[in-house]
Amino acid sequence: MSAIRKIQSKSKELSAFQLIVIFYLSALVISTLILKIPIALRPNAELSFIDAMFTAASAVSVTGLSVISIKDTFNNFGIFLLCLILQLGGLGVMSLSTFLWVMIGKKVGLKERQLIMIDQNQSNLAGLVQLAKRIFVIFISIEIIGGIILGLSFLNDYDSGYTAFKHGFFAAISAATNAGFDITGESLIPFKNDYFVQAIVMLLIVFGAIGFPVLVEVYEFIVTYRTKRKFHFTLFTKLTTSTFVIITLLGAIVIYLLDSQHFFVDKSWYDSVFYSLFHSVTSKSAGLATTDINEFTPSNQLFMAILMFIGGSPSSASGGIRTTTFAIVILAIIFYALGKGSIKIFKRELRQEDVLKSFIVMSTGAFLCLISILILSITEQGTVIEVIFEVSSAFGTNGLSLGLTPNLSPFGKILIIILMFIGRVGIVTCLLMLRGKGSREKIHYPKEKVIIG
Amino acid sequence: MSAIRKIQSKSKELSAFQLIVIFYLSALVISTLILKIPIALRPNAELSFIDAMFTAASAVSVTGLSVISIKDTFNNFGIFLLCLILQLGGLGVMSLSTFLWVMIGKKVGLKERQLIMIDQNQSNLAGLVQLAKRIFVIFISIEIIGGIILGLSFLNDYDSGYTAFKHGFFAAISAATNAGFDITGESLIPFKNDYFVQAIVMLLIVFGAIGFPVLVEVYEFIVTYRTKRKFHFTLFTKLTTSTFVIITLLGAIVIYLLDSQHFFVDKSWYDSVFYSLFHSVTSKSAGLATTDINEFTPSNQLFMAILMFIGGSPSSASGGIRTTTFAIVILAIIFYALGKGSIKIFKRELRQEDVLKSFIVMSTGAFLCLISILILSITEQGTVIEVIFEVSSAFGTNGLSLGLTPNLSPFGKILIIILMFIGRVGIVTCLLMLRGKGSREKIHYPKEKVIIG
Ligand SMILES: [K+]
Ligand SMILES: [K+]
Repeated sequence: MSAIRKIQSKSKELSAFQLIVIFYLSALVISTLILKIPIALRPNAELSFIDAMFTAASAVSVTGLSVISIKDTFNNFGIFLLCLILQLGGLGVMSLSTFLWVMIGKKVGLKERQLIMIDQNQSNLAGLVQLAKRIFVIFISIEIIGGIILGLSFLNDYDSGYTAFKHGFFAAISAATNAGFDITGESLIPFKNDYFVQAIVMLLIVFGAIGFPVLVEVYEFIVTYRTKRKFHFTLFTKLTTSTFVIITLLGAIVIYLLDSQHFFVDKSWYDSVFYSLFHSVTSKSAGLATTDINEFTPSNQLFMAILMFIGGSPSSASGGIRTTTFAIVILAIIFYALGKGSIKIFKRELRQEDVLKSFIVMSTGAFLCLISILILSITEQGTVIEVIFEVSSAFGTNGLSLGLTPNLSPFGKILIIILMFIGRVGIVTCLLMLRGKGSREKIHYPKEKVIIG
Repeated sequence: MSAIRKIQSKSKELSAFQLIVIFYLSALVISTLILKIPIALRPNAELSFIDAMFTAASAVSVTGLSVISIKDTFNNFGIFLLCLILQLGGLGVMSLSTFLWVMIGKKVGLKERQLIMIDQNQSNLAGLVQLAKRIFVIFISIEIIGGIILGLSFLNDYDSGYTAFKHGFFAAISAATNAGFDITGESLIPFKNDYFVQAIVMLLIVFGAIGFPVLVEVYEFIVTYRTKRKFHFTLFTKLTTSTFVIITLLGAIVIYLLDSQHFFVDKSWYDSVFYSLFHSVTSKSAGLATTDINEFTPSNQLFMAILMFIGGSPSSASGGIRTTTFAIVILAIIFYALGKGSIKIFKRELRQEDVLKSFIVMSTGAFLCLISILILSITEQGTVIEVIFEVSSAFGTNGLSLGLTPNLSPFGKILIIILMFIGRVGIVTCLLMLRGKGSREKIHYPKEKVIIG
């Protein structure tokens, strides 16, 4: 709390959180205008303003929900522009612009560094520029390597090398940024039996969803390992990585169990493994799919909506409440039931304010989604489960859909745009944006106990 | 935390929370056996063991969900027994047994008083026996007055005075204990145009759902008022009453809005007012209805499921997470967004541990319901919305249903019994039951910050 106050009191006129939101809003406006450029469209394609804004919001927030068919609307140039916008969203507007500032020789000031700090949720000012550079280099390298591998693998599926590599690079960028857009017109369904492609795509998704700090620490670990010095992973990296792995594996098992008598009934064991693992991974944030989600039972759709709500790691290309938030809430409940005063994990204690923050993030996210579900179930022509799925998908910047997206009313499109935006920017930033300049509280009242639950 | 420790360390072998759970379990077993008495059944009626247990659990937890038709299964004697069990549930096993102990001259020891303290969530040991007596007297008086008024009003509807008063008293007890059982076979639908009956029933429901401490404080206020001394309502009473009123009115408005183009489209304004207000009140905990809930749109059913999940006031005849829990969570989010260090309301500050407890109760309740929904959507033959509604209804000890109850599988019945039980006993008691004898923690680790949301 006091750290935020310090930052706020140093900030000149707007709080850093307000600046973050303004920056993302600018990215949204600019992306909307870019996508409206006529030369980005196919000869007979049309793109209304609201649809351009929806596509831009979906791209900036790397959600991948789409009210239009990407492949029928944009030509190659348009798809190239879309890829650039995905980088903007995937890498975070802040870290990308910092990198550009550093590249063109502009000295990065304290205020700008505070911005990336919050955007990447880093609490230490030192080495942030360095961090932004590393993230950029690691991420772009991953995309290029992924694009080459997928392009080579697609050579058998497409009639020209150019088309194969176009699809390969788009799929790699779409997966690594967790955007989930497709130019096949049907996500990854054409590759439902190509386990090599699925494995590479899952790996790329994980790179994007596991969190930049984790990637950087792993990179530092490898560098340090060669120098034979000892390297300590932070509590955050240990917590977020173990949560990520547990949720992904448990998710795959539950997806299988919920549909074992339906979708999986006629599938071989390796088909089942790939379908359930892929859809657990993709439910985190990516939104690519190897089958029509409508083929799963409603209970499975509800479960995937919960996974989408949770999302991926903090400081990653994913949305939702983030895995760490969910893990801390679960840990807090368990430790409370056991009567422990504090949460101890990996030989560290969690701070009380981080626990409270986790509960606030989860509750606010849940209220936001519930209210949106109620509103959309009046304004839209969809079943309750379709609406629940769509809202979770938008808030989790996921992009999976049961088919409601193209039929959204203009009002529904705007609400989904807002959800994608909040999901990407994050609940904490959105809440803290509302704070003023942080004046000290002078009035205090006696504390009084109340009855709970 | 330390108060709980103190209680626990004084308790001989089992913690008070464990005793509460054991007492409720005993009440469940005894009620099951009572309902299985052959002379309680109608001549050709049958009642399997699982159905007797379900009815007993539903009665002890004053839920009102029923796998059988009460009027076709039980004779007058059986209905009388059911009413006794409802009192057991409505008044709380603890306060009722304390009253009986006092009546038969048994001195109430510290340990027994700790039990009522926790059962009624009171944190002050003083005057607890006095409190239990008052609750009992006030409550029984309300039921008798309600029964007489409804009985008189039913004289026109039934052919004998006996039947009218039988229905009147059963409806009064069912409303005041928030049980929601009916012996009409179709809840209050026969009285959908009798606004007097509806008003009385709503009043009785509010008496049962607003919380015993509030009733006692209002009673003390009236007594003190005549002596011209100043009376201070506790923070709890102010918070719980204002939350209750706000949720009820907002609930009625939202119920109207969600169905304004459907259910309410052919209703007069006073019909609309009564239908929406009644179903907002009944969604708290009572579970009586003046229309088939299936006539509402799915979005309204989802909204009512949320109301049921929230439930009524703590220390009342209702279940769910309780209104205060919900209010504190909302306040915590607002004060966090505003950057305030503590929650100030009614010139008092909430304690940090109460805030954390509220979040824990809400999150645990949500997880419990979500997991139950996923499980039941595999084991039961119902739509997702039917299952969501049923689970919320059980956890909120509400009793409204979209029709799934009579078709539940044996496994489904057991899960619903568990939910009703947890809903009535309360999340806090259930969680704290898991705690051991409260050994001091000796190991401490350094605190480390992590990234949230
Ligand atoms: K996505
Ligand atoms: K009830």
